[in-house]
Amino acid sequence: MKISILGGGGFLGQRIANRLAREGRLGNVAVTGLVLFDIVPPRPIDGAAFPISCLGGDLVDLPASAIPDDTATVFHLAAVVSAQAEADFELGRRVNLAGTDAVIDRCRRLAQPPRVVFTSSVASFSGGQGARLTDNARQLPANSYGTQKAAAELILADATRRGFLDAVSLRLPTVVIRPGRPNQAASGFFSAILREPLLGLTTNLPVPDDFEVWICSPRRATDWLLHAAAMDTAALGADRSITPPGLSVTVADMLAALEAVRPGASALVGRVPDAAVAQIVGGWPSGFVPSRARALGFSAHEKLAELVQAFIDDDLVATLADRAIIR
Amino acid sequence: MKISILGGGGFLGQRIANRLAREGRLGNVAVTGLVLFDIVPPRPIDGAAFPISCLGGDLVDLPASAIPDDTATVFHLAAVVSAQAEADFELGRRVNLAGTDAVIDRCRRLAQPPRVVFTSSVASFSGGQGARLTDNARQLPANSYGTQKAAAELILADATRRGFLDAVSLRLPTVVIRPGRPNQAASGFFSAILREPLLGLTTNLPVPDDFEVWICSPRRATDWLLHAAAMDTAALGADRSITPPGLSVTVADMLAALEAVRPGASALVGRVPDAAVAQIVGGWPSGFVPSRARALGFSAHEKLAELVQAFIDDDLVATLADRAIIR
Repeated sequence: MKISILGGGGFLGQRIANRLAREGRLGNVAVTGLVLFDIVPPRPIDGAAFPISCLGGDLVDLPASAIPDDTATVFHLAAVVSAQAEADFELGRRVNLAGTDAVIDRCRRLAQPPRVVFTSSVASFSGGQGARLTDNARQLPANSYGTQKAAAELILADATRRGFLDAVSLRLPTVVIRPGRPNQAASGFFSAILREPLLGLTTNLPVPDDFEVWICSPRRATDWLLHAAAMDTAALGADRSITPPGLSVTVADMLAALEAVRPGASALVGRVPDAAVAQIVGGWPSGFVPSRARALGFSAHEKLAELVQAFIDDDLVATLADRAIIR
Repeated sequence: MKISILGGGGFLGQRIANRLAREGRLGNVAVTGLVLFDIVPPRPIDGAAFPISCLGGDLVDLPASAIPDDTATVFHLAAVVSAQAEADFELGRRVNLAGTDAVIDRCRRLAQPPRVVFTSSVASFSGGQGARLTDNARQLPANSYGTQKAAAELILADATRRGFLDAVSLRLPTVVIRPGRPNQAASGFFSAILREPLLGLTTNLPVPDDFEVWICSPRRATDWLLHAAAMDTAALGADRSITPPGLSVTVADMLAALEAVRPGASALVGRVPDAAVAQIVGGWPSGFVPSRARALGFSAHEKLAELVQAFIDDDLVATLADRAIIR
């Protein structure tokens, strides 16, 4: 099976590529080739038993080589993130919508309609603090990023109905703890308040301690994306969108988990309210009742303490090196 | 107040233009100019006390003259209809989505964000026979036209939130009785089974007599569109979409109303099942509970017999002439 990862240079794209390289298969099928596509050519992955090509280019002018003719599975993770799409309307529309059109147009030309796993987002919903949305909740986004994700879900479901491809759209929670550096996502601080203290660095918290957020770990997000790529989609019917089983936690819960793992570390978090950031993340629902995903075999979320420990196990050394931090 | 009607050559565009010409005002404000824009220059409207310009062009390459700088209200009715969007995916996407982007981009450049009244559709929902959807029902379209309408609603709501314009999206029921000729809408037969017999012509019914459909009259659709243009939108909040109070009727109800007005006419309707048409219209919900629209002042629907009589009063002579039918 040949696989392409669009946004293959990003955080989740690299995780998926590493898992595929390590395991050599997706579900029960051996991987025979992998393309990583991003704005600049992604880092190659070590240790794979199959060829990997790393391509750079513009998603909207998607080259055929990004999704070769015999591709069976496409991970479409390429996106302009929330704060950036809010700051630059045209850029968000171009990448998040016209980019998705380009993916559909390429998939239509393949001999067999490929599975397309698309990362939609909790930001495609509103409801705010205290919300517990069910699987049939209406998407009424409170930001341009969420709007573009919700529209792309619709368009991918239609492309599936037409037989152009076989889409599964996962509305990912806010992924915590992201390794590396702060990015332009409005939700970036949810990772930073755990990551930066674990690196020995100070960071700012722009919302109150009792702010509740719907999160998932990088490990869980990767598991879900691989499950979405391998699952039998017959059970989905016309509804190609899935809200996977994340975790509703408060900032206070997160800081308590940090303290449990690294006593004293939470003192590095300063309270600096930011109305613009609070306005964006405050519109997202703080919880879901993800019954459908559970029935479809998406794995339950681990506890918060495990999530913090997993960053230490999986990412701390690489993040320290990447950011040239001497300890 | 200056007004533009995109799709001004179409059935509803011409109705709105005629109403504005006759009344001279929209809500409490005098109309000072009207632009009718369509693929080919629309027919001019007689009897207006304000200047009317009729322009032809491509919606996606929208000329600035289609929405002049001091425009206060835009009716965005231009669309590729359901059966056509199903037959030609690229054309539907281009007009129904890229066209809406072009409208937004032009509105952003005006001195004041204009009211934009957009015609969305019952086809943006699924649920089928027996459904009674509430205002918070999720849009899970079963066809490309409905998908494009639902996505355009999302994008217009976001453009409103950003202050580019002030959108009201009306999810119109199937409009019955459309005058003129059969069009490429999959729902066209719902008008034809009343219109053609009233013209003395035979026509085909592609669905069973007990098929239930959510309809509105041209008079009611025009009233609703004008109300959407004049209403105070402060009460809408972030949700810019409204399901107006249509009527759930069966085909048998419609044929009985025809018989009551013109005894014997329903004998001109032949039963010729059409699976492709039935598949499209069978996906649309057959009813709604339009509480929000009622609270927002959208007028209740008249009875079916009045709808049939209104076609005779408003459209029969013109339709006979247009189709060169001698009686």
